[in-house]
Amino acid sequence: MTNEQAAEQARVEARIRGSFAKQGLMATLGAVLGDIAPGAVEIILPASSAVSQQHGFVHAGAVSAIADTAAGYAALSLMPAGHGVLTTEFKINLVAPAVGDRIIARGRVVKAGRTLTLAVAEVFADRGANQKLVAFLTATMMSMQERGDIVD
Amino acid sequence: MTNEQAAEQARVEARIRGSFAKQGLMATLGAVLGDIAPGAVEIILPASSAVSQQHGFVHAGAVSAIADTAAGYAALSLMPAGHGVLTTEFKINLVAPAVGDRIIARGRVVKAGRTLTLAVAEVFADRGANQKLVAFLTATMMSMQERGDIVD
Amino acid sequence: MTNEQAAEQARVEARIRGSFAKQGLMATLGAVLGDIAPGAVEIILPASSAVSQQHGFVHAGAVSAIADTAAGYAALSLMPAGHGVLTTEFKINLVAPAVGDRIIARGRVVKAGRTLTLAVAEVFADRGANQKLVAFLTATMMSMQERGDIVD
Amino acid sequence: MTNEQAAEQARVEARIRGSFAKQGLMATLGAVLGDIAPGAVEIILPASSAVSQQHGFVHAGAVSAIADTAAGYAALSLMPAGHGVLTTEFKINLVAPAVGDRIIARGRVVKAGRTLTLAVAEVFADRGANQKLVAFLTATMMSMQERGDIVD
Repeated sequence: MTNEQAAEQARVEARIRGSFAKQGLMATLGAVLGDIAPGAVEIILPASSAVSQQHGFVHAGAVSAIADTAAGYAALSLMPAGHGVLTTEFKINLVAPAVGDRIIARGRVVKAGRTLTLAVAEVFADRGANQKLVAFLTATMMSMQERGDIVD
Repeated sequence: MTNEQAAEQARVEARIRGSFAKQGLMATLGAVLGDIAPGAVEIILPASSAVSQQHGFVHAGAVSAIADTAAGYAALSLMPAGHGVLTTEFKINLVAPAVGDRIIARGRVVKAGRTLTLAVAEVFADRGANQKLVAFLTATMMSMQERGDIVD
Repeated sequence: MTNEQAAEQARVEARIRGSFAKQGLMATLGAVLGDIAPGAVEIILPASSAVSQQHGFVHAGAVSAIADTAAGYAALSLMPAGHGVLTTEFKINLVAPAVGDRIIARGRVVKAGRTLTLAVAEVFADRGANQKLVAFLTATMMSMQERGDIVD
Repeated sequence: MTNEQAAEQARVEARIRGSFAKQGLMATLGAVLGDIAPGAVEIILPASSAVSQQHGFVHAGAVSAIADTAAGYAALSLMPAGHGVLTTEFKINLVAPAVGDRIIARGRVVKAGRTLTLAVAEVFADRGANQKLVAFLTATMMSMQERGDIVD
């Protein structure tokens, strides 16, 4: 990593961590940030009855919340300073029950545009050594500019 | 309402309330059930910093969680006894920031099939007398049969 | 209808018919415009082996093409003159095989925004007196401004 | 490639080519099959005014039609003999205008289930040496069994 890349990495990490800390929902769910890189952000949710649905699996809503957040921050990590990110829409396919010790959402940018960014997130259920794909999300993220109240 | 309709209404309400009470996530978010009818279920989320994103709006993940749940229970309300409901996929369009006193998701069934049901949910932000559409969800719900662990 | 409403209706019809006539795909499929009103546009596709998939049903791609077009023109009908419409994304749920004499897509605007519009389309298979819902589409339409090559 | 793999490859190719030949829509659009492998299928559409929208780009409906078909055949290629494939739902994000000599959709299976398969398709516009991503599709494909009229 060059000095320039290291500086960019540090800038992105600070931006994402600062914004994430303001998300009341992530604290309420007990979700935390994992790896962060320009264009790629990971969020980890410990599985517990606090985030369950009626059969004991992690709720699709909790899976979606961390997947949307991971995709959104992947998008934000590539936006100019001063811009804010809002989710315009997302779709999530739930391909297996979310059962495990932790649920891990890995967001990444597919196409960054001036106004709209397409990001995806893969979500895995982690049980010890084994990670299993449980969901796949695609999202359109909007870059908000010169909106004093919507930054990062 | 005939006696038969009243009995069906009571049966559906008991089924949905019983399943909802097992959803740890709904309790964690502070969401409660609203009106229930065969094919239509309402869920209400008080807005607070506990469910916010970084700009202070209600988080798209929290909006999605109650919209998915309202759509899922609308679908379940029409499924035979002993069946369970799982979300296969959903898409949500977020058309305005979710700002208000309460967020209300109203789910309803569009097409009930033997295996798959299409349900939608409209989500409103409630500010006193005024209700504003903030999101629209479409979801495919799957009816699980003879799966002892997946009922309601 | 007031004189003003009649003028608006005529203006919208002329705009949509003019743009539709430039769509090579609609001619290739044999699709035609049906009813047009501000915020609501109908497109009709005669069913034939020219638009079939492998089992003889009308192809999901043909169903999607007219549903997307109906939703897009519903959105365009409410955009200022000189703007053009592009589809940013759509999702379609196919709830029954598209079998009938004609397939009819009815698009309408749910929320018109400055940049993005949410539109939906319901698609019906028409067999004589009977119309059956076969698909439901939600789409984000983008309003393009001051882009000389992208008008209507 | 072992003899067994070569036999599987030949079986898949014959199955997909046989089914594709029955799709009236693909012939009407002028689309052809490209590379085929178990779990991955490519479809190619020559760009022309016959598949255009009003601004001269390839129509989102045509892009969707080949993306859905590529994803569907990727799913079918992994289904047991005698089963048929139907699209339950798909979402497509259109990230750039589809402008080029040919449009190429590459479908692949993400998760093959007993009843439902998640497949995706990336769509590229091909202009000489340059391939540009123009769309990304996710689809739920349903495996139909013991339905005499719905095979392959």
